[in-house]
Amino acid sequence: MTDITMIDTAAARLKGHTRVTPLLSSPFLDQIAGRRLFVKAECLQHTGSFKFRGGWSAVSALPPEVRANGVIAFSSGNHAQGVALAAARHGVPSVIVMPTDAPKLKIDNTRALGAEVILYDRATEDRDAIGARLAAERGLTLIKPYDEPLVIAGQGTVGLEIAEQAATEGITHADVVVCCGGGGLTSGIALALEARAPGLRARPAEPAGFDDVARSLASGQIERNARLSGSLCDAIITPQPGNITFPILKRLCGPGLVVTDEECLHAMALAFLRLKIVLEPGGAAALAAALFRSDQIEGNAVIAIASGGNVDPGQFCTALERYGH
Amino acid sequence: MTDITMIDTAAARLKGHTRVTPLLSSPFLDQIAGRRLFVKAECLQHTGSFKFRGGWSAVSALPPEVRANGVIAFSSGNHAQGVALAAARHGVPSVIVMPTDAPKLKIDNTRALGAEVILYDRATEDRDAIGARLAAERGLTLIKPYDEPLVIAGQGTVGLEIAEQAATEGITHADVVVCCGGGGLTSGIALALEARAPGLRARPAEPAGFDDVARSLASGQIERNARLSGSLCDAIITPQPGNITFPILKRLCGPGLVVTDEECLHAMALAFLRLKIVLEPGGAAALAAALFRSDQIEGNAVIAIASGGNVDPGQFCTALERYGH
Repeated sequence: MTDITMIDTAAARLKGHTRVTPLLSSPFLDQIAGRRLFVKAECLQHTGSFKFRGGWSAVSALPPEVRANGVIAFSSGNHAQGVALAAARHGVPSVIVMPTDAPKLKIDNTRALGAEVILYDRATEDRDAIGARLAAERGLTLIKPYDEPLVIAGQGTVGLEIAEQAATEGITHADVVVCCGGGGLTSGIALALEARAPGLRARPAEPAGFDDVARSLASGQIERNARLSGSLCDAIITPQPGNITFPILKRLCGPGLVVTDEECLHAMALAFLRLKIVLEPGGAAALAAALFRSDQIEGNAVIAIASGGNVDPGQFCTALERYGH
Repeated sequence: MTDITMIDTAAARLKGHTRVTPLLSSPFLDQIAGRRLFVKAECLQHTGSFKFRGGWSAVSALPPEVRANGVIAFSSGNHAQGVALAAARHGVPSVIVMPTDAPKLKIDNTRALGAEVILYDRATEDRDAIGARLAAERGLTLIKPYDEPLVIAGQGTVGLEIAEQAATEGITHADVVVCCGGGGLTSGIALALEARAPGLRARPAEPAGFDDVARSLASGQIERNARLSGSLCDAIITPQPGNITFPILKRLCGPGLVVTDEECLHAMALAFLRLKIVLEPGGAAALAAALFRSDQIEGNAVIAIASGGNVDPGQFCTALERYGH
């Protein structure tokens, strides 16, 4: 089980290899949100998303003789890049199983970071089965994207940084809104905040139609999404919360927030204009919730995690054309 | 005269009000540059450029009874926003004199930050004369954009941060390429590096046709540009180096680097793809030089200042359409 000690240990392994990302803000965004709004810019992490933390945490914790055989991961893109770079910097091979509809940029980047990429059909094939088979055949260690204690511990280091940065800003009570897929980042942050900043409360943000976590928190049991594709927020679409992450989310998180794809595009344009950072739709879900669901948020400050920025230029310009004025 | 003591004093006034901006990197950019490339992301500074440092330095140093009358600045946009926000946060009025051809976004932002904006024609009117007249009429303190020791000291705090961050990365000898207009940022950084990281050498980067600093460094005396407009790099177009900045540049800087507008657009697209930051053309000149003038740069590492990110969405998408693949 992941706990604060495991997160602290992960932080020690990550030190000097991951970036301490800044907490950004703008008076223009404060005005829209109706309170002080801070954005934890994890899009500035190596590989363009927080996933490098979990990847590094898992790869660095392997016994060297096991690690030498290589690692395998399945991912719509950001976990792929995180694991690929973590493996490359440890000098070991990586195999990444990606859906055929993942953004081309993410597939290209994963290959360029040294990984062998294997594509599968998200609608008809089972990525878990593919991953397990390849792992067995080649002696690779499977690094799951979220339902893995070492990965949760790595993502939890975002929460350690937030606890310190919030204290510097004088924030003792606030909602911390987190872009949520399987719940690895959200549960890791929730555990870190519980120990280091108990006045801060994690809240998952999800795209409409893929709000499995919000519904699971409301019902108290794991709920599934009806669809497995069809949102711009490809990075945070998962069938259901993880078996390891959900009990943590249930114990520690406030109610889930749900935003539309258009609101994510709007948040991307505002992040461009006001913070000078690049977000992908799924990475902008928490910012969208902080900006456009302010009636569902409490307190005079809110922190939103900007979890990733691996967006195709065409999609980014669509966001700017619609909302960049 | 600005010296390291003045920069240290400015740093003490700025502490808690300006952001310590991160030093970013990407293996993809290292490959293009042919060496380790680090980007000091000053686009993430408040108001989207380093200019807030100089603005805060100057406004915070005024005697309270003088400051209460308000301040005035003339600027193509980034200095305007920096001074406007610094004045607003000190609770005093600001008047900003801007050229009519400044990007609309910069004019709008300056007004939204609380400043009174007065527009002038860059080709036919003298902004210095306009500024001096208004200052005298209203009892405002004129805050010059670069030829002002307090402003140079504020910009020099970028150099203090680089000295610390470079040491953390193990960089003891490298060129530090700086987007250069009148030379306030470049001279401030050069002074800070001289004292705190003498193995690091500042080098100005300018757009072709507006390379007054590069030519002045080559000839040893102040040279003027033939034109006063006509580059995408509006943020760093100035008639000539400053009378205060040039002697500092001459004593401390390596040769100037000159890049084309197209290379700046290309660097903007690469910063989008690889670093997830938003740069304006003038703010990308140093990165363009680090990427595309590697034959003129020495050593196995280079640091480029990404000085600003206040770019119109249409221009940004032009860069992505041409180079974002």
